[in-house]
Amino acid sequence: MTMTLYCFGESGHSYKAALALELAGLDWAPVKVDFFNGETRGEAYRTTVNEMGECPVLVDGEVKLTQSGVIQQYLSDTYGHFGGKTPEEAREVLRWVLWDNHKLSANAGIARFLMNFLPEDKRPAEVIGFLQARLKGAYALLDGHLKGRDWIVGDGPTNADLTCCGYLFYPEPFGFTRADWPEIDRWLSNIQALPGWKHPYDLMPGSPADRA
Amino acid sequence: MTMTLYCFGESGHSYKAALALELAGLDWAPVKVDFFNGETRGEAYRTTVNEMGECPVLVDGEVKLTQSGVIQQYLSDTYGHFGGKTPEEAREVLRWVLWDNHKLSANAGIARFLMNFLPEDKRPAEVIGFLQARLKGAYALLDGHLKGRDWIVGDGPTNADLTCCGYLFYPEPFGFTRADWPEIDRWLSNIQALPGWKHPYDLMPGSPADRA
Repeated sequence: MTMTLYCFGESGHSYKAALALELAGLDWAPVKVDFFNGETRGEAYRTTVNEMGECPVLVDGEVKLTQSGVIQQYLSDTYGHFGGKTPEEAREVLRWVLWDNHKLSANAGIARFLMNFLPEDKRPAEVIGFLQARLKGAYALLDGHLKGRDWIVGDGPTNADLTCCGYLFYPEPFGFTRADWPEIDRWLSNIQALPGWKHPYDLMPGSPADRA
Repeated sequence: MTMTLYCFGESGHSYKAALALELAGLDWAPVKVDFFNGETRGEAYRTTVNEMGECPVLVDGEVKLTQSGVIQQYLSDTYGHFGGKTPEEAREVLRWVLWDNHKLSANAGIARFLMNFLPEDKRPAEVIGFLQARLKGAYALLDGHLKGRDWIVGDGPTNADLTCCGYLFYPEPFGFTRADWPEIDRWLSNIQALPGWKHPYDLMPGSPADRA
């Protein structure tokens, strides 16, 4: 049975789940969520899809899951792929999933939103600067970790990679310049070279071009 | 063998792990990390304790783990307690652990740091206001979820509760007023009534009083 992923192209958190589905070769279809017209903030979405008012949401038969890290974990547990080869690797994967959700994707997602999807006169400069400083620390940590490694955990791609790259392929500026971080750059190329890899705007419905 | 937790009293992220250890009745001892004099930012800590430069870190024999959510998961998997009773509950627990790390504790921890542990003339008002607005959304979501429930997941305490309460018992102001959120207030009282519960400054070494 085809799985359904509530998502939209601009959502890096959704991309983490969509990429896990796609690279694992699973049978899935996206349902576009109209984030920019307030769908996730509406009562209907919160009542029937996700009380947290967020994307992504995965529906697999009777199972409905939210939070990209939970969806990734469920896909690994249920269908194999990307969960790490040992319990130790699995814990290390979860460690990076949590770190990403706290320190990397959270700040990248907000910074990108504030810098690109708010009207120019509503962009809070001090907040953006603060987020970018926090992000710089996160990029430095990830770049350092990737020295001498092709993947964040173990010797192949895992959910650790699929979570941390969530916002790093997007073209909109948010303070990340790939060329500034050579190890991250190399690692992102490794991800792009995986069979079936797609850019977020090719993998999920919706992009800034649709709203231009 | 006694487990070791690198932690310090002011760290709500550490508190989540310390509380899981304590409420489970496990044999553990804290090692105080001198965060306020820069220990976690130093090369020695990053090289030998945690490359992420964070607390908490758990050492259990040969096992060394970082990220409070990983430590909680490991304790549940290894010693029982707080992991949820079914695979469905376990996924729901992880969902709230991720949500907390992204939307609640992350913002609460930073807001509290900026408002209390920076010199008054260095406190970024726009950032603090932004974080408090994000936090208000998180409190509202949690308060709504707790209507008619004693615990976040299932019918007893889990890591979902122990993660989300991480910063909510601290006395320093960061924009959380317990009385404003009756369901959260009731739920925090449930946690406080658990046998062995301790306030963060009683459970871990170090508090603002030590530095006064």
